[in-house]
Amino acid sequence: MVVILKPKTTEEDVQKMISYVKDMGLDVMVNTGVDCTVLGLLGDTSRIDPDTLMLNCHVDRVMRIAEPFKKASRKFHPEDSVYEIGDSKIGVEKTFTIIAGPCSVESEGQILEVAEDVKKSGAKLLRGGAFKPRTSPYSFQGLELEGIRLLKEAKEKTGLPIVTEIMSPYMVESFVENVDVIQVGARNMQNFDLLKELGKCKKPILLKRGLSSTIEEWLMSAEYILAGGNPNVILCERGIRTFETYTRNTLDLSAIPAVKRLSHLPVIVDPSHSAGMSWMVEPLSLAAMAVGADGIIVEVHNCPEKALCDGAQSLNPKQFDSLMKKLKGVGKSLGIEV
Amino acid sequence: MVVILKPKTTEEDVQKMISYVKDMGLDVMVNTGVDCTVLGLLGDTSRIDPDTLMLNCHVDRVMRIAEPFKKASRKFHPEDSVYEIGDSKIGVEKTFTIIAGPCSVESEGQILEVAEDVKKSGAKLLRGGAFKPRTSPYSFQGLELEGIRLLKEAKEKTGLPIVTEIMSPYMVESFVENVDVIQVGARNMQNFDLLKELGKCKKPILLKRGLSSTIEEWLMSAEYILAGGNPNVILCERGIRTFETYTRNTLDLSAIPAVKRLSHLPVIVDPSHSAGMSWMVEPLSLAAMAVGADGIIVEVHNCPEKALCDGAQSLNPKQFDSLMKKLKGVGKSLGIEV
Amino acid sequence: MVVILKPKTTEEDVQKMISYVKDMGLDVMVNTGVDCTVLGLLGDTSRIDPDTLMLNCHVDRVMRIAEPFKKASRKFHPEDSVYEIGDSKIGVEKTFTIIAGPCSVESEGQILEVAEDVKKSGAKLLRGGAFKPRTSPYSFQGLELEGIRLLKEAKEKTGLPIVTEIMSPYMVESFVENVDVIQVGARNMQNFDLLKELGKCKKPILLKRGLSSTIEEWLMSAEYILAGGNPNVILCERGIRTFETYTRNTLDLSAIPAVKRLSHLPVIVDPSHSAGMSWMVEPLSLAAMAVGADGIIVEVHNCPEKALCDGAQSLNPKQFDSLMKKLKGVGKSLGIEV
Amino acid sequence: MVVILKPKTTEEDVQKMISYVKDMGLDVMVNTGVDCTVLGLLGDTSRIDPDTLMLNCHVDRVMRIAEPFKKASRKFHPEDSVYEIGDSKIGVEKTFTIIAGPCSVESEGQILEVAEDVKKSGAKLLRGGAFKPRTSPYSFQGLELEGIRLLKEAKEKTGLPIVTEIMSPYMVESFVENVDVIQVGARNMQNFDLLKELGKCKKPILLKRGLSSTIEEWLMSAEYILAGGNPNVILCERGIRTFETYTRNTLDLSAIPAVKRLSHLPVIVDPSHSAGMSWMVEPLSLAAMAVGADGIIVEVHNCPEKALCDGAQSLNPKQFDSLMKKLKGVGKSLGIEV
Repeated sequence: MVVILKPKTTEEDVQKMISYVKDMGLDVMVNTGVDCTVLGLLGDTSRIDPDTLMLNCHVDRVMRIAEPFKKASRKFHPEDSVYEIGDSKIGVEKTFTIIAGPCSVESEGQILEVAEDVKKSGAKLLRGGAFKPRTSPYSFQGLELEGIRLLKEAKEKTGLPIVTEIMSPYMVESFVENVDVIQVGARNMQNFDLLKELGKCKKPILLKRGLSSTIEEWLMSAEYILAGGNPNVILCERGIRTFETYTRNTLDLSAIPAVKRLSHLPVIVDPSHSAGMSWMVEPLSLAAMAVGADGIIVEVHNCPEKALCDGAQSLNPKQFDSLMKKLKGVGKSLGIEV
Repeated sequence: MVVILKPKTTEEDVQKMISYVKDMGLDVMVNTGVDCTVLGLLGDTSRIDPDTLMLNCHVDRVMRIAEPFKKASRKFHPEDSVYEIGDSKIGVEKTFTIIAGPCSVESEGQILEVAEDVKKSGAKLLRGGAFKPRTSPYSFQGLELEGIRLLKEAKEKTGLPIVTEIMSPYMVESFVENVDVIQVGARNMQNFDLLKELGKCKKPILLKRGLSSTIEEWLMSAEYILAGGNPNVILCERGIRTFETYTRNTLDLSAIPAVKRLSHLPVIVDPSHSAGMSWMVEPLSLAAMAVGADGIIVEVHNCPEKALCDGAQSLNPKQFDSLMKKLKGVGKSLGIEV
Repeated sequence: MVVILKPKTTEEDVQKMISYVKDMGLDVMVNTGVDCTVLGLLGDTSRIDPDTLMLNCHVDRVMRIAEPFKKASRKFHPEDSVYEIGDSKIGVEKTFTIIAGPCSVESEGQILEVAEDVKKSGAKLLRGGAFKPRTSPYSFQGLELEGIRLLKEAKEKTGLPIVTEIMSPYMVESFVENVDVIQVGARNMQNFDLLKELGKCKKPILLKRGLSSTIEEWLMSAEYILAGGNPNVILCERGIRTFETYTRNTLDLSAIPAVKRLSHLPVIVDPSHSAGMSWMVEPLSLAAMAVGADGIIVEVHNCPEKALCDGAQSLNPKQFDSLMKKLKGVGKSLGIEV
Repeated sequence: MVVILKPKTTEEDVQKMISYVKDMGLDVMVNTGVDCTVLGLLGDTSRIDPDTLMLNCHVDRVMRIAEPFKKASRKFHPEDSVYEIGDSKIGVEKTFTIIAGPCSVESEGQILEVAEDVKKSGAKLLRGGAFKPRTSPYSFQGLELEGIRLLKEAKEKTGLPIVTEIMSPYMVESFVENVDVIQVGARNMQNFDLLKELGKCKKPILLKRGLSSTIEEWLMSAEYILAGGNPNVILCERGIRTFETYTRNTLDLSAIPAVKRLSHLPVIVDPSHSAGMSWMVEPLSLAAMAVGADGIIVEVHNCPEKALCDGAQSLNPKQFDSLMKKLKGVGKSLGIEV
């Protein structure tokens, strides 16, 4: 951590500042520049809050050099984290895991049919929303517990482990009992009370990146879960908010190699929500594989009477099957197993 | 709501689409253009989800014309909403309410002293954090319930109503019992489960704008609380995330006249968190008044030994007193009472 | 185009508005809603400026339905535009063109060596900066005309056509004479006087997307060149500015399928500048191919004494050669020729 | 400047790096941390390009501590820069200068009438666009030289100095001869060739902030003009691009105190273009004064037949007169002369 003192800070005040920092158990190097003095703080600075240092009237700016996360950092955990869930090993090198299913669980018929379809095409886990975070209080909020029940039924029929989103700390116990991977949505990425509760269980947590979160904040949210005692976090890039309006969000694929370098946690991509247009799902899925993601979570819906239609952001089973074939082809050329 | 159909949609499919929309209880106007057909949906479209319409394979785009919020809309509630809290009437025209206090409650001595100081200078409510949303799990998370207890003590001593942040639906009952205004932080603006719980009580809710939320989404989050049955929402602009890094966030002061036009809810400004630098608090506070906000929530800290210092984003009591005098001056020229 | 009138506009004023629009040669459909009246403008609206309509006191908002670009639009030009430059056919389906070379031309030795290296590995065009847009007036501004001369020398030796950036309308004549593809940098994407000058020549123009430009604005800048009479525009996505600071810019790969759908113009990707880190170039290049780009423009430097080093954003020739091999592998699986 | 070396850089390589930096005429302090070594570069680092340092394979990151601008910096020029133009002294403390006029010069009648109106209400300079940067090649591009002629006529009649936008280096000579303040639009803020040309004249340059420019980049563009020999630069904040769509751009009023602290150059605000809605001009203008700007540049149009109307972003003369009265009132309370 580097602390830049204000110009004209007196030698006496510099010494006070040094004592203050040493009292926190850190070593200090003094860099006396032309305009200002810069202190280099040496030691474990991850517990130091830059804002606290800023409270000192002689401090102009504070810059972090070491990352603020530890348990999520590849530095202290060089090997990839790998989680075995059903038939899949998420995070293992040269493997690309497909999670697929409808945006919302709507009925028994729907979820069973989609589950069988995506399994046939090669999906390893089934996704489906039971509790839906909706911008409007007047929109459909999901089938809730009935949705979880139907997902379990689909799991029994197909053997596919299930992934579904949690929205409230009240539901943690029920989710731990009933689902295989607990998803935290983008809007709850910094719902710290929820993260703390999830840190107490051992279920794999699929942590989506917040709409305007930096990579560092995203890893700090993972750190909350890890620090709580749950080592099983899967990151999911789902697009960030920019000024561009053609796509719903801007999928940040460069975040994938960044996260792989900074952290040992697996990271997957959601190509459906980011763009919000089904015809973009295929190119973005192939790009997700090429850029080094550990998998994708993709929306597949099933409405026989609209079989030739593409929904806003969902593929139909036929389109999904075609995507799977292309992923296998590209995977082969890169030595990646789908 | 305007539904733009894909080019080359057949007349038969246009008719199917029209029937589909009429079945939702809406009227339809058909605009047959050169390239495409555009349907104008007439009636109450606030309950229509554009994404559902997008599921139809002939729909190219959907544009809202009416706002999706109703209870928060000035259209259906032309008079300003006003809440009497202690000595203040937040939201009444030509009145500017000051909420002041430390970022975090740290000790009995601190909160009592700051409370007395800000009261003396003219603050109408006392703010202070007890539960702190922190990016890092290793940072100080607040005094929690002990912090609430100390705030109540300060209220007893000074008569100032207290404002403090809630982070979990578990705490709603306790907050309703103990505090006067319940703050929802930027990171929880779309924590819908929390909003639903707060919709069940009658306490005024101070709803901060999310870091990357549009004005419409912010008002939709207010709508969650209003739709739940709690009519008492105060909005708070606290800066949005942009590419600019000199300031911590970019205070969006143009959101104030926008919100005043779109909604009847009071809207205040947080000049302390947005910039993250105490020397910006005064100019931004004056600008907040000039742009038409109903008040400000400002950080004031109190550390006698650092009396000449400015912390990162807090004013000291003397600086706060000087700000109050300037606000009164500008207020006088604009006919605004502070 | 849809014109939303203000609530409470009188019938008389609606009729005036209709006459006004009809005088512009357009047809009008009237949609009388509960809250407001919406006019559907039918006909060629590409020459209508929404801001002019907004000048009318009864207009609340104007929304475009048809795209404002015509010559750049796939609607009016369904076949892909293809340009033959040297041995490459940029824009032809299932072909991926590689443009490579140093960020700046530094010396004869450097540019000749890099040119031969990249040619050997399979690059089809040589890039190299002679005029450099630099944020600071104190930074190296390029070798300027001497740089152009050295590029031509490299072209003579290797046969590779050359791509280099123009910064001033003064230089158009000289560039037309000496280079094969004229690059317009992100910072000049809306330098309309430069675009107009380039519209008068017939050289292929490589038009980079502006740092905060929407896809629509980017295509409108292409439209300037096309409308001027030059049909040869190649688009280049190079990252947009967001709040994320880990990468220099956020490469918007979803813009590629978007542009391919909206326009017939070829679109390539710059994986070097966007991220600003050489270790990201390979994954982003592979992703660019997978997402459907027509090629990449990639920085390759050459400093024997630093042969084992990776520069900030440049690959060395060995790394570039390894990238080419991987691109060929992935290309094979997708039926794409490199 | 702080140079963070990669973890595991050998002592030998650290020494090489130190020699390399010393060869550039700088002193070096070495901070040996637990994970990595950090070099503090002491001396004049404004001419050092961080990207060049990044080319070294042992460098992980480079952080600037001193600002990269010098002539624009308040550090080296503590007194406010003040320019006398006509009756105004732009930049002098406690003075607020009003520049007003139509978006585009449309006709002799229009510009003369508006000029007289705004003068009567207290404007000190006349604005009006002759060369218009338009996103679409099909939109009206301005009256060009005829527009300049009409502006001069309005100046003769009213005595108001004129401000108008330049778009091409070709026009610098003509502008120097005919106008009083040369405006550089947001889209040309990094048109470095234009900036260099303007650095050769002595006319005051009104430099608008780019749509997605940081404050530092904006000051670096001013530095281009200053470094070229023209000391007369007025900065103009006009809104930045964010995800918010209700306003056209987000006016960044916190940039005003930031610029006043970092630089000695005057900074004004454009409240018309940023929001794009005339009813926002008044509150944003008052806020601009309250936040410490040196003035505003505001659009006033004049169309008698639409006298009761508000255009998209322009005030009519009556609204402008009312704004002037309010500015004088607030100015009085803050000791600011309008």
